[in-house]
Amino acid sequence: MNNEYYMNFAINLAKYTKGQTNPNPPVGAVLVKNNQIVGYGTHLFAGGSHAERVAIEVAGEQAEGSTLFLTLEPCNHHGKTPPCTDLIIEKGIKKVVIGAIDPNPQVSSKGIKKLKSQGIKVEVGILENECNELLDAFSHYITTKRPYVTIKTAVSLDGKMATAYGESKWISNAESRKDTHTLRHESSAILVGVETVIKDNPSLTSRLEFGGKNPIRIILDSDLRIPLSSKVLTDNEATTIILTRKENDNFYLGTNVKVVGLENGPYDISEVVNYLGEQQIMSLLVEGGAKVISNFMKSRIYNRVIVYEAPIIIGGEGLSPFQDFKINSISQSLEYDLKEVKQIKDNIKKTFIKKEELYATN
Amino acid sequence: MNNEYYMNFAINLAKYTKGQTNPNPPVGAVLVKNNQIVGYGTHLFAGGSHAERVAIEVAGEQAEGSTLFLTLEPCNHHGKTPPCTDLIIEKGIKKVVIGAIDPNPQVSSKGIKKLKSQGIKVEVGILENECNELLDAFSHYITTKRPYVTIKTAVSLDGKMATAYGESKWISNAESRKDTHTLRHESSAILVGVETVIKDNPSLTSRLEFGGKNPIRIILDSDLRIPLSSKVLTDNEATTIILTRKENDNFYLGTNVKVVGLENGPYDISEVVNYLGEQQIMSLLVEGGAKVISNFMKSRIYNRVIVYEAPIIIGGEGLSPFQDFKINSISQSLEYDLKEVKQIKDNIKKTFIKKEELYATN
Repeated sequence: MNNEYYMNFAINLAKYTKGQTNPNPPVGAVLVKNNQIVGYGTHLFAGGSHAERVAIEVAGEQAEGSTLFLTLEPCNHHGKTPPCTDLIIEKGIKKVVIGAIDPNPQVSSKGIKKLKSQGIKVEVGILENECNELLDAFSHYITTKRPYVTIKTAVSLDGKMATAYGESKWISNAESRKDTHTLRHESSAILVGVETVIKDNPSLTSRLEFGGKNPIRIILDSDLRIPLSSKVLTDNEATTIILTRKENDNFYLGTNVKVVGLENGPYDISEVVNYLGEQQIMSLLVEGGAKVISNFMKSRIYNRVIVYEAPIIIGGEGLSPFQDFKINSISQSLEYDLKEVKQIKDNIKKTFIKKEELYATN
Repeated sequence: MNNEYYMNFAINLAKYTKGQTNPNPPVGAVLVKNNQIVGYGTHLFAGGSHAERVAIEVAGEQAEGSTLFLTLEPCNHHGKTPPCTDLIIEKGIKKVVIGAIDPNPQVSSKGIKKLKSQGIKVEVGILENECNELLDAFSHYITTKRPYVTIKTAVSLDGKMATAYGESKWISNAESRKDTHTLRHESSAILVGVETVIKDNPSLTSRLEFGGKNPIRIILDSDLRIPLSSKVLTDNEATTIILTRKENDNFYLGTNVKVVGLENGPYDISEVVNYLGEQQIMSLLVEGGAKVISNFMKSRIYNRVIVYEAPIIIGGEGLSPFQDFKINSISQSLEYDLKEVKQIKDNIKKTFIKKEELYATN
């Protein structure tokens, strides 16, 4: 057994809580003594125990003299729970192996410093990339105060999300659609334009076999054209926030519905994500339609694009999710890193991350 | 060792000759005696020895009493070479293991019958799918008298092959472009519209590191607008056939150039492929542009679509290779089997095969 072995266990503990820790990141912890695992833990939800606290509780007396593997540097400040560094010191843990440093500039490296000052051995950077990946949404949120934005679309092999007549059911296969429900489960909020609500009346919930966590539903609707019978207003499955223009602020549209008027209206994407950041929304899934997606593209405010592709050709007058975004030359095209290509039966799932240099324009 | 082991060797022998056997299929042969390989061969070019003949020559006296592994049923007729069945019988081979039955309806199964009638043990269908795959172009050609058509395009992640201003250099990466040169090497002919020649002046040759076989170059050009200085007319790297309207038949445009007037002009794709079939062109690579590709889509005359995708977004007014093909509802979309997804650095190569049921409309 080596450091990577135990850190991998900690990473796996964290992975499964993705989506339920908002606005905290998922974190995993493993305690090892005499080459045996004596404790393990993961952070389940904001306000709940931190991963290392659970691991130490599980270990009981065994914690003394053990080594702690942590995907994220322990906190050294009072939040909803007391500092984990104090507990680590108090319980006599002799070594701490850390995957990622805390991306929050206000606390970054302070936990490590504190442990070292108390004579605890600290090793940093084990499986760092994998540990940082657990933090993608959190890192973006904590440094920009805006949600990590994922644009998701399902298209034909020629890049069309619907026919010229707006028909879009169903381009992707059943397995791809199930995969998008996992994306919803992992997201703090989901966003669509009012056109999508009028046309499809979606519930925007996470309908997984054993249940999924529903994201907060965000609808962009300048003129409050949303039908009062819409599922998102009436089904009570999750909170719905209608972002509209200033004059419509605070209209009453239902018990679990918030109507919020924005200064420049809901199509100023910068104002939209600033507002959502203030609401502690760490990750946002943008599901369409074409007008909304193009607005996000034009503003350059997004981090990730996920495309599900079906093996059909819709042809010339079909609707592209990016059609309102326009450039004059290839040098002006938006560039991405290809993060992952995955075959889902006869569909292809492609994950693109916006190139690092463009982050600066956010 | 088992049947699959030796058949795999035969398949590999055949694979490497793909593109150079036109209008014959690639074939591999392995002779085994006392659990050792005693002979092997592959068909190199039309008019050259068949695979089994080479294998038997290599084996010499060892052929007697051996088992022959063949990717394709042996021929039982006089073509450019005498029937291989006679040779197999004459040399005292005791068993023949066959991957695929000859797809040519005029000779199919006749070789097998002949061997059996002479008391030779015959086993059929070992690694049948892999062996049939070697025959994709040949099977189509021999049953329809038309080339197997591959449509190839390189697009952005939103399905655009060029900007609104026609700029297309370079969407795909260097490795993807090298891969397309392998496609050219494997094809009997390559086809583009005259607009592509006017705009890009391509050579349409196979420029691989150790040389590639150049396909015959086919240009669709109704009004003979092709510039006389074009590489395809002047570089003598391969034969060029200009398909034009009837009135322009037999114009002289160069020493290695053939000008052919078609009854309905070069945009009647059915007439185009009939003519190319008559010229014994077994496989055709269609490289564009959008007008030509859309014409193939509209006529439904093609077998395979290969798309290279780059991780950029070009946006709304970019050119789609399928833009002149139009449908009204998703049920009318063209459907494909997803054959292969392959990551080529930051590009994705996708291979789609037209769904079997649509073959009937060819």
